[in-house]
Amino acid sequence: MKNPESVIAKLAEVAMRRFAMIKDGDRIAVAVSGGKDSTALALDLAMKQRWWPVRYELKLVHIETDMGSDWQSSNMEKLFASYGLSCETVNVPVLARLKADRKMNCYWCSTQRRTELLRYAQAQGCTAIALGHHLDDMVETLVMNMMLKGQMTGMLPHLRYDKYPVRVIRPLALCEERQIIEFAAYKGFNSFTCSCPHDDTSKRKLVRQRIALLTGDSSAAKRRIFESQFNIKEDYLCGEF
Amino acid sequence: MKNPESVIAKLAEVAMRRFAMIKDGDRIAVAVSGGKDSTALALDLAMKQRWWPVRYELKLVHIETDMGSDWQSSNMEKLFASYGLSCETVNVPVLARLKADRKMNCYWCSTQRRTELLRYAQAQGCTAIALGHHLDDMVETLVMNMMLKGQMTGMLPHLRYDKYPVRVIRPLALCEERQIIEFAAYKGFNSFTCSCPHDDTSKRKLVRQRIALLTGDSSAAKRRIFESQFNIKEDYLCGEF
Repeated sequence: MKNPESVIAKLAEVAMRRFAMIKDGDRIAVAVSGGKDSTALALDLAMKQRWWPVRYELKLVHIETDMGSDWQSSNMEKLFASYGLSCETVNVPVLARLKADRKMNCYWCSTQRRTELLRYAQAQGCTAIALGHHLDDMVETLVMNMMLKGQMTGMLPHLRYDKYPVRVIRPLALCEERQIIEFAAYKGFNSFTCSCPHDDTSKRKLVRQRIALLTGDSSAAKRRIFESQFNIKEDYLCGEF
Repeated sequence: MKNPESVIAKLAEVAMRRFAMIKDGDRIAVAVSGGKDSTALALDLAMKQRWWPVRYELKLVHIETDMGSDWQSSNMEKLFASYGLSCETVNVPVLARLKADRKMNCYWCSTQRRTELLRYAQAQGCTAIALGHHLDDMVETLVMNMMLKGQMTGMLPHLRYDKYPVRVIRPLALCEERQIIEFAAYKGFNSFTCSCPHDDTSKRKLVRQRIALLTGDSSAAKRRIFESQFNIKEDYLCGEF
């Protein structure tokens, strides 16, 4: 069996080169939630800093809401410190900001957090934001959009905003979730689960299970679904009428 | 419950209008295999001829191979005659044409049959070929291509060839297979199954089952997957690198 650390390192390297994720002198805000994905991302980017052909800077940031989390009691900051990484916390009072007649929901909360993340990145002079989304997230997003919205749209490994001078990169785009779980176990870090009382990720979990049924749990089939996103034959999809 | 005949009639009408399938004066070769799909197609096109806003002509054609079929003993030609339709048979000796060192396979056989169909259509001065593919075929083709080939490519409801002056139309593109089965039962025609000794459609059948698992057997989800083919957000699929 391959070393789980080199598996992640190699797949992240391939993704970073293929999607030209890093520019010389980039200052990259890494959004760390405390979960395994963004922790793996931060550690891998820290390791790569030592030898990556161009120089880049990392600014770890944790977006903390007023819904409570185990971030303070977790040993995440210690873990990052052992890699020479410090981490800032930005407080976003999503509950307090909610209007009286509105119920908390994932869409609103995540919009608030994303806005604050973008604001933080711009205030810090960052040129990119790194997010911990992995291959399973990418495939799920594509299939959910097709099946629930009737739209072929996915998650880009490398996104440029029109409105903001900040890019979004997803270096783990080619890593499967199970590979990240193995990496976390190997590195001995326990991520704490974000226990959100308003969690409505059940739809995503259902789609994840169903994609496993569709592919017969084949990693190769899942990767091919992801690759199809970059291999669009429009002449044999929509034609002209 | 709705009358199965009007269900097919309406969905075919919607597809024919939406994808501009029929031009005034079209001479349409309808490929009839003896199966339920192409039989339903031929009957529906014959019914619509009576009131469709523009005039079109139908030329039913059955491609018969030397692998044996129940076409002669079936009562398909009688059924068509009762709708005022006559049907020609074109013999394609796929076995006899096979080179000595080659094994029969679906790809080669279907290429032979498609070539002869195109030749027949052009010889008869046809402007279009109508095929009996339905919604489940379209969704399966798309998902198979994504999952097995890593390519976003599907089946077009209306295809124009560059090389040939003949279009291919699929009027049943919006009909589910189960709706065609109900139509066949309602009209009282028994299709004979093409019993091909070289059948390798097992992959397609597997994908069909797995798509039912993916969608939770939801017709609406399946239709949305089909619709996504016409609703491509390239900016959120492949981007630029």
